[in-house]
Amino acid sequence: MKNGTSTRERIRREAAALFREKGFNGTSMAELATEVGITKSSLYHHYRSKQALLSEIIEVTVDRVAPLVEEVAQSDLPIRERLGRAVALHTVEAIHDQDSVACFVEEGRYLAPDFMAAHVVKRDRYELIFRRMFEEGITSGEFMDQDVGLAVKAILGMCNSVVRWYRPDGGYTPEQIAAQFAYFAVRGAAAARDLSPSSPGSGT
Amino acid sequence: MKNGTSTRERIRREAAALFREKGFNGTSMAELATEVGITKSSLYHHYRSKQALLSEIIEVTVDRVAPLVEEVAQSDLPIRERLGRAVALHTVEAIHDQDSVACFVEEGRYLAPDFMAAHVVKRDRYELIFRRMFEEGITSGEFMDQDVGLAVKAILGMCNSVVRWYRPDGGYTPEQIAAQFAYFAVRGAAAARDLSPSSPGSGT
Repeated sequence: MKNGTSTRERIRREAAALFREKGFNGTSMAELATEVGITKSSLYHHYRSKQALLSEIIEVTVDRVAPLVEEVAQSDLPIRERLGRAVALHTVEAIHDQDSVACFVEEGRYLAPDFMAAHVVKRDRYELIFRRMFEEGITSGEFMDQDVGLAVKAILGMCNSVVRWYRPDGGYTPEQIAAQFAYFAVRGAAAARDLSPSSPGSGT
Repeated sequence: MKNGTSTRERIRREAAALFREKGFNGTSMAELATEVGITKSSLYHHYRSKQALLSEIIEVTVDRVAPLVEEVAQSDLPIRERLGRAVALHTVEAIHDQDSVACFVEEGRYLAPDFMAAHVVKRDRYELIFRRMFEEGITSGEFMDQDVGLAVKAILGMCNSVVRWYRPDGGYTPEQIAAQFAYFAVRGAAAARDLSPSSPGSGT
């Protein structure tokens, strides 16, 4: 059982790396088996399909990060601080688990309808943690009254884009990137006092 | 010649849609030829490889949008207004040309080294338009002093994420999304007056 679990983990790790490098549709189960160093039939013993594998990669990473973010969201800190910390946490986790998060962000669209439905539920539940923080901040007057759905898409889109360009030798630490994103999120969320009220529409 | 051009355009359009749907590595030239309604040899007459095709899809969209953004960046408007308009323009163009921009954002990583080198030059030149606006705003004191490279990655990451979730029936017009993103970008860029100076580090 212990051994079985660790083989599954190893399969997921190698699969996430291959999917990220070559794309879900550019990776074969045969290739993956070779990479993991097991037979193709052993691979199918662990995962009945490439779809099931992609689905579990995404599920495992969301299930790991969501409770951490939820804990921050539920803490007693001021709402600005909570939003900033949640964004920073999400960013650091995305960088540390880059292959899996890239699967979530870029390969999730290849999921077949049944897996996709489960994926969408999980994604929506994750986004809800951020939406609730926005709603709370707007209600208390600490956040600018704005479309919560769009604000959360903007922030998570910004955070997730890191999986495409982060490199350990790229000149920024995960913490620096997280701090910048948290800063943007908090500035974008916070109630306007010094910026003219016409700013939200300035781009149209 | 006229006819040749329009076939090339049609090939690019169909290819961008297929690459977006199935991934670059999940799409074959044979499939694309069928979709366009030409023979495979005719397809290869227009594009000598799938790599050349992906590269041109990306190049055409960047070459189309960059001058528009550059024009905004060089205008006489205040720097905040210019940044907001450039972000909104980028966002609206990304939505209208979603397949090609998705190729730029998500499929570009599959480019072979020589095509990749050209891609990186173009991408860096595009980012430079935004970097220069940040540098100008920081120099004039209208923008917060922050890491320009990270700020631009944050903003363009936010904007480009739209290609993954925008749907015409999704409840938001391109202009609403553009206005929200422009608002976030301008708020994130603008000099802090009402927010505590510790905000940028609040997430660490």
